[in-house]
Amino acid sequence: MNDTIELMQAHHSCRSYTNEAVSDAMLDEIIHAAWRGPTSINAQEVSLIVVRDAARRARIAEIAGGQPWIAQAPVFITVLIDFNKTRIGVEKAGQTQVIHESMEGFGVAAVDAGITLGNLMTAARSQGLGIVPIGGIRRNPQAMIDLLELPPLTFPLVGLCIGHIAADAPQKPRLDISSFRHDERYDAGGYRAAIDSYDETIMKYWQQLGRSDGITWSENLGNILKQVYFPEVRPVAAKQGLLNDK
Amino acid sequence: MNDTIELMQAHHSCRSYTNEAVSDAMLDEIIHAAWRGPTSINAQEVSLIVVRDAARRARIAEIAGGQPWIAQAPVFITVLIDFNKTRIGVEKAGQTQVIHESMEGFGVAAVDAGITLGNLMTAARSQGLGIVPIGGIRRNPQAMIDLLELPPLTFPLVGLCIGHIAADAPQKPRLDISSFRHDERYDAGGYRAAIDSYDETIMKYWQQLGRSDGITWSENLGNILKQVYFPEVRPVAAKQGLLNDK
Repeated sequence: MNDTIELMQAHHSCRSYTNEAVSDAMLDEIIHAAWRGPTSINAQEVSLIVVRDAARRARIAEIAGGQPWIAQAPVFITVLIDFNKTRIGVEKAGQTQVIHESMEGFGVAAVDAGITLGNLMTAARSQGLGIVPIGGIRRNPQAMIDLLELPPLTFPLVGLCIGHIAADAPQKPRLDISSFRHDERYDAGGYRAAIDSYDETIMKYWQQLGRSDGITWSENLGNILKQVYFPEVRPVAAKQGLLNDK
Repeated sequence: MNDTIELMQAHHSCRSYTNEAVSDAMLDEIIHAAWRGPTSINAQEVSLIVVRDAARRARIAEIAGGQPWIAQAPVFITVLIDFNKTRIGVEKAGQTQVIHESMEGFGVAAVDAGITLGNLMTAARSQGLGIVPIGGIRRNPQAMIDLLELPPLTFPLVGLCIGHIAADAPQKPRLDISSFRHDERYDAGGYRAAIDSYDETIMKYWQQLGRSDGITWSENLGNILKQVYFPEVRPVAAKQGLLNDK
């Protein structure tokens, strides 16, 4: 197995960082790796905002619902959907952009944002840095828009902490790989048995970490997915001019 | 610069494959790397369907609008949103899943699908294989649902060809990195100049490839983004029980 695959198979988050800065050279390499990732029709409708200012990171930690690692890690990168960038090209060509109003456009941009986020994580981890992806910025997207001065047709989709690791964390188990990979056609026949086994595995994992508040995967999903977890996403996206249902 | 970052910075697609099979061992390593990627709240709401059967790949090549490299490359992986998997866990916990009806749920799953796709691409390329991501399966998502036997609460979002490279392709230029990276706050002040420069760069790139049909980035975006490009995405997603606008 090569180093890159070994690194990816060892993926895990880190929530404890030293106060050592991430050098400009390291950060440039990470961002350059993400910049070269593909986007649908080469639209390049994803942008990054790098926040290193400590007061601004402390504010993002609050916006995300109180996540101290955002204030602690020296770099926080917000991954944006940026249909403002593409609009400039479309208007230069004498056309009017419509795609940003559609759920298809939002979904495609979200895929491309995910590729970008994944590349940032892998590149940072290849340098020995720690990372933790942050969905919690969607808890209050308007506050992120205000802080980052985001114009219409942009949306702060997901974030990432990057820093030098103070205390590393173990890798969280996954559902059996048979629940991830299907061959030729979809077959959910093994899903329930895999989930039952995984619920036990996750409880052992919490015990090993000394986490007495741990619950099963199924219970956690039940608590969260029974509702629209971050209800501000849709109305704020609409206010930004996105997703008007075409 | 380490090998992983060098690999990622050299990302490019390949549309010409030999007929050599991708070994089970190589494919297992690639899929294992993607399986370990993160998902929002560890929901693991992404699944893969590996298609190696030649007749089925030929059918996908048609569905995607006539893309011969899908029939040529020995492996085609479809990345699915899979809220059917999470539903089983949520119901086990005695709850009713709602998130799949929301645009927030679809968007988060699309981000996680993008991370998965990116990991598949990087892992395959680290083995010396070629890849090309395929959005064209969204041209006719119902045909993919029928072919892959996808149940409600799942959606075929994006695909990937993997194979041994017959003829490699050069790396396509990108908009200047200043249009991708912002520091502390969004600043589109340089976008138009970067786009003007890039339109010229892309035309030189087409000339170098001998492609007399090449058009600028702006013209290409104008042609595509003036409309909802794959209009079947939204109605078919709704038919699958997704995105009913909560």
